Amino acid sequence: MSANRDNTQNHTLEFVELTELLRQIFLRHGTSEKVAQVLSHNCASAQRDGSHSHGIFRIPGYLSSLASGWVDGKAVPVVEDVSPAFIRVDAANGFAQPALAAARELLIEKVKSAGIAILAIRSSHHFAALWPDVEPFAEQGLVALSVVNSMTCVVPHGARKPLFGTNPIAFAAPRAGGQPIVFDLATSAIANGDVQIAAREGRMLPAGMGVDRSGHPTEDPKAILDGGALLPFGGYKGSALSMMVELLAAGLTGGNFSFEFDWSAHPGAQTPWTGQLLIVIDPDRGSGQSFALRSEELVRQMHGVGQERMPGDRRYLQRAESLANGIEISIADWKQLQALASA
Amino acid sequence: MSANRDNTQNHTLEFVELTELLRQIFLRHGTSEKVAQVLSHNCASAQRDGSHSHGIFRIPGYLSSLASGWVDGKAVPVVEDVSPAFIRVDAANGFAQPALAAARELLIEKVKSAGIAILAIRSSHHFAALWPDVEPFAEQGLVALSVVNSMTCVVPHGARKPLFGTNPIAFAAPRAGGQPIVFDLATSAIANGDVQIAAREGRMLPAGMGVDRSGHPTEDPKAILDGGALLPFGGYKGSALSMMVELLAAGLTGGNFSFEFDWSAHPGAQTPWTGQLLIVIDPDRGSGQSFALRSEELVRQMHGVGQERMPGDRRYLQRAESLANGIEISIADWKQLQALASA
Repeated sequence: MSANRDNTQNHTLEFVELTELLRQIFLRHGTSEKVAQVLSHNCASAQRDGSHSHGIFRIPGYLSSLASGWVDGKAVPVVEDVSPAFIRVDAANGFAQPALAAARELLIEKVKSAGIAILAIRSSHHFAALWPDVEPFAEQGLVALSVVNSMTCVVPHGARKPLFGTNPIAFAAPRAGGQPIVFDLATSAIANGDVQIAAREGRMLPAGMGVDRSGHPTEDPKAILDGGALLPFGGYKGSALSMMVELLAAGLTGGNFSFEFDWSAHPGAQTPWTGQLLIVIDPDRGSGQSFALRSEELVRQMHGVGQERMPGDRRYLQRAESLANGIEISIADWKQLQALASA
Repeated sequence: MSANRDNTQNHTLEFVELTELLRQIFLRHGTSEKVAQVLSHNCASAQRDGSHSHGIFRIPGYLSSLASGWVDGKAVPVVEDVSPAFIRVDAANGFAQPALAAARELLIEKVKSAGIAILAIRSSHHFAALWPDVEPFAEQGLVALSVVNSMTCVVPHGARKPLFGTNPIAFAAPRAGGQPIVFDLATSAIANGDVQIAAREGRMLPAGMGVDRSGHPTEDPKAILDGGALLPFGGYKGSALSMMVELLAAGLTGGNFSFEFDWSAHPGAQTPWTGQLLIVIDPDRGSGQSFALRSEELVRQMHGVGQERMPGDRRYLQRAESLANGIEISIADWKQLQALASA
């Protein structure tokens, strides 16, 4: 299923329509009702917001992983209330998003009473964008930070072979005058999907994105895909942050490090089986001032020095467009989704 | 005071000797006994560990700021116990490190009971390395993360003028088989001090470090220093992280953003008057496993793929050397320090 669309051959759906179609697909392919609800909303949101690499493009990967028996689509997450500000969840080899959903209410309760709280999810599969996990907290006036590790494809700075995952960091903060400030950044120099697209289009990559199978720097996306690996963004600094993600998302939660799981017995498996950490803060506890007014002041100043687009703005623009005029997908994709929903 | 040393003209001091000398200097230049203790230990530790840009090199800047009346060397931090996992400290226009020291015991108590706790320091001056603030928590088996904003010198990605500070992020985690894993990284592409050194030595910088006064990219350190500015590391990603540091260290704590303070009425002022955030976690709450054993496994694997030096290792090596054989400083520096201590 391709994220590229031929505009003359498009079908337009409402957000709720796409969500319902995806819910049917998940249900038909081995998930519980609850898991289907959570994943369909997540995936449709990414498509709605123009995050195409995490929209319907991901459906074949989800279904392939489910079919392989690698991930449990009916897993029931076990929420453990550890202490006044600490929750852990055993996702029980299911997806991470239903684990977060199961703990969400308790997490917010703890943040409200303790001022900060931490959610440590283990034995979870995260195959989606990370921003949908943090943005809702900012909509409630909270600050949220999340990290998730993935699967070995990034060479630590100064090393010869890959070890880390693409290991994204996502952050969300409320602001008074507009939508929350939200970023979601891979600690790899480039996303795996973008390497694949460059290879398909026969384009070379900028320097510093990856190495070939011998560990030598290359700008050829095919050499990266053919046994090579990605580099961290920003040299040793991005590498240190990627290491931090391994330590927090796996070391601290009890999930697998990106190099620890072995899916070779499950051909078709695509979802990394690791862990995820969330830290949520009530920012108005920090001082006598309103955080949202302060963050708005920072945004105003950023605009003042010429940064026109805030992190998250492109998604909000596409979201407004999609909600006003519907979500366009290709006729081919639409037919394939319909077939999957009735398969 | 220069970080460069002529090895034929060196004086060797014990760590405690250097600390005592610096303590005398701070005391003689307007700090309280408590502040002198904390700052002298911090500064001597940086010198001991080879962090020369934050060692005795900083003393003239500290004294200049104190003499200008910009920072209160006798400030008494006010610790506020906000909720089960939230502490805030009004550093009262004093240094950040004594504010952290004042709250440290309560912070650890909260981490032990709640599983995570946050310390929001405002109205503080941070003129030191950030790693000394987090490393001690890891020595006690805890995970610590800290951010501090500084003063406008970094152009946000896509903007035309500087707004952010160098805004470092520091992280520390315990490990079973060795010293804690600790990193301290500026979110700017290069430190201000390194630009000054390159300018002095007549060297050009690598591309991507800074812009000239018109906002155009330059590799000339003099053009950066002459009304130019630094760039974030890693493009839009480092810029997003720098923005996060502003939001957490200033927006959330109630401290000044990097662009908010005006020291023009205090000639000689050098210490940024902002805020600092610390988040400390009890990592063994995350799962049934020992975090320190898990982090040791990650280190083992990082060594296995060829990353020989872990973040923090260079400091530990220099520390061991300094503790065994003393700390070498130039005779000129030593005489200057002695003069300052009796001034």
